[in-house]
Amino acid sequence: MKVQGKPMRTIWIEEDGRQVGIIDQTLLPHELLLRRLVSVEQMAEAIRVMRVRGAPLIGAAAAYGLALALAEDPSDANLDVASVLLRQTRPTAVNLAWAVEEVRRVVAPLPPAARAKAAYEKAAALADADVATNRAIGEHGAPLLQAVAQRKGRVDVLTHCNAGWLATVDWGTALAPIFRAHDDGIAVHVWVDETRPRNQGASLTAWELIQHGVPHTVIADNAGGHLMQRGQVDLAIVGTDRTTAAGDVANKIGTYLKALAAQDTGVPFYVAAPSSSIDWSLGDGLKEIPIEERAQAEVTEIMGQLPDGGVARVRLTPEGSPAANPAFDVTPARLVTGIITERGIAKPSREGLLALFPERRPRLAGE
Amino acid sequence: MKVQGKPMRTIWIEEDGRQVGIIDQTLLPHELLLRRLVSVEQMAEAIRVMRVRGAPLIGAAAAYGLALALAEDPSDANLDVASVLLRQTRPTAVNLAWAVEEVRRVVAPLPPAARAKAAYEKAAALADADVATNRAIGEHGAPLLQAVAQRKGRVDVLTHCNAGWLATVDWGTALAPIFRAHDDGIAVHVWVDETRPRNQGASLTAWELIQHGVPHTVIADNAGGHLMQRGQVDLAIVGTDRTTAAGDVANKIGTYLKALAAQDTGVPFYVAAPSSSIDWSLGDGLKEIPIEERAQAEVTEIMGQLPDGGVARVRLTPEGSPAANPAFDVTPARLVTGIITERGIAKPSREGLLALFPERRPRLAGE
Repeated sequence: MKVQGKPMRTIWIEEDGRQVGIIDQTLLPHELLLRRLVSVEQMAEAIRVMRVRGAPLIGAAAAYGLALALAEDPSDANLDVASVLLRQTRPTAVNLAWAVEEVRRVVAPLPPAARAKAAYEKAAALADADVATNRAIGEHGAPLLQAVAQRKGRVDVLTHCNAGWLATVDWGTALAPIFRAHDDGIAVHVWVDETRPRNQGASLTAWELIQHGVPHTVIADNAGGHLMQRGQVDLAIVGTDRTTAAGDVANKIGTYLKALAAQDTGVPFYVAAPSSSIDWSLGDGLKEIPIEERAQAEVTEIMGQLPDGGVARVRLTPEGSPAANPAFDVTPARLVTGIITERGIAKPSREGLLALFPERRPRLAGE
Repeated sequence: MKVQGKPMRTIWIEEDGRQVGIIDQTLLPHELLLRRLVSVEQMAEAIRVMRVRGAPLIGAAAAYGLALALAEDPSDANLDVASVLLRQTRPTAVNLAWAVEEVRRVVAPLPPAARAKAAYEKAAALADADVATNRAIGEHGAPLLQAVAQRKGRVDVLTHCNAGWLATVDWGTALAPIFRAHDDGIAVHVWVDETRPRNQGASLTAWELIQHGVPHTVIADNAGGHLMQRGQVDLAIVGTDRTTAAGDVANKIGTYLKALAAQDTGVPFYVAAPSSSIDWSLGDGLKEIPIEERAQAEVTEIMGQLPDGGVARVRLTPEGSPAANPAFDVTPARLVTGIITERGIAKPSREGLLALFPERRPRLAGE
């Protein structure tokens, strides 16, 4: 998507064909810092401290990390060390381990001298596949917005957290239909939940929308239900970190509350889910999806920009007050209107998802 | 309630018998600043910028504001000017207009020379009545907590915003049952919604609970639904800024979302409502209660404490991203389990409220 009018991705190969460029997301929205990574250690650090974040992006980042490692030393030993280093950066992210395995599968059988080139090619292919998936989600989702805009002249969409292009290689998941509709000339306006405690909505989603020129308004997470009651939201689209085969959705904490309000007020509630986020082994999301508990400091402190332009962390709570910080919640399938995948929009149920992904249908004994 | 071990109120008459002392709540929880107000203009400013806030407290504050005005100039003209000035400070709170009217009713028939003394006496009486009302709410609400604690050894209560003693003259409304239960030796733990955008939960409620020694945990507003899904909340108690005769509740933005989650998970959802917050003229809260839209900067910036101890505002959003800031939402009566008043717990309906306040029952023609 666009930054200052020019198309950009979140990760790319520099002109030397070896170094990897990234947008360092830790200072957004206050400062756009591009970094040039020259080693797997630098990539591992970038993933660990969330200079790059979002499940699809850290998959691509890990793949490029392995390429950086093999460019330096293509031996079996280094392939193993680098794989472990990358996998340990964010132990719960499935895309990361998956992407490392994908690259290993390609390079391991090759003679060492051929490995680096093959790793760069595989990383690029994974990145391009992510872009294609998200573009397809945008194409399947945009007609939902278009239908409303045809009726009332514009469409107001609510989103939570950042499931935009910064969380992927390009396009994003929940924001892909919004970018697609906007680029097609549909009058889209986005209500952006700030998404405490890490504020990815107010910082990253708002920054993406400003840069790409999409009209939007930032709101406190508390405001979405009220806006729905007043008829100011036509539909909600959120991302997902993990979707069960039955259509339950684990996404950023607070998603469940917005889904409840959408149901209570009759607002359609969509989840944009690349099929890589679907865990076909899970049924009941509430019982089976473990929820990461993150640091208290994410609740008790916040980063922002001082009047002098500097960026600082400030404390919000009294000394001595403890905090709890569950990072995700589970929205039961019964509250979801549809799941927008790269193959189309699925009903939020086992049958609905299997209709789009028939290859996942369990085979009967003897088949 | 207690501050550093000593009992304190939020508003008082200074030893000169004329100036009004307040806790300036804008620097809490980082600094406890006491202010001495000498004029109605200072009181109006204190209400407008929320140095004093919370429906019951701004009622008492407005009454003392009128007393300050009459001490300076007890004329009819000044009584009118001061009344208008005070009423315009906060449009949604019904207590404010009510308290101004209560003082006017007493002082208007008096000769100007007698008005100031009568206004101070009436303001003091309103403040004492608020304390008695809230103490009674605590006594009626505490058994709800005790019943849970008897069953499971402790009780986990979720609250939103600050309906504590800082929002009243003393005791608070939603926190009164919690203080009562805690003082009676019941093992209470409070989940404190931080309550963006003004963070009155993380700043004021957490500060009250720390000062009074009540165990608690601060959470992002997004987390409450998840905690209810996991069975970690036994009941919710919130305050109200305006309650309709039918039991609809206008309270801090986000209350509606928690009420939806409580209903979805079977958690009892109580509203602590002094009868002064009940607007007997209103039926449908969603249609009839005007919602205050506050400054964008409350969403785009936040105040906190720097590592060096200083207090600063930091910007959270990108330059150019607009924000919307509705301050309240309406929770329909159907989502409320009970309304805890100074006369007992009412069913959230016209009949339920009238059973406790029969003097409000409309008289039939000819009665």
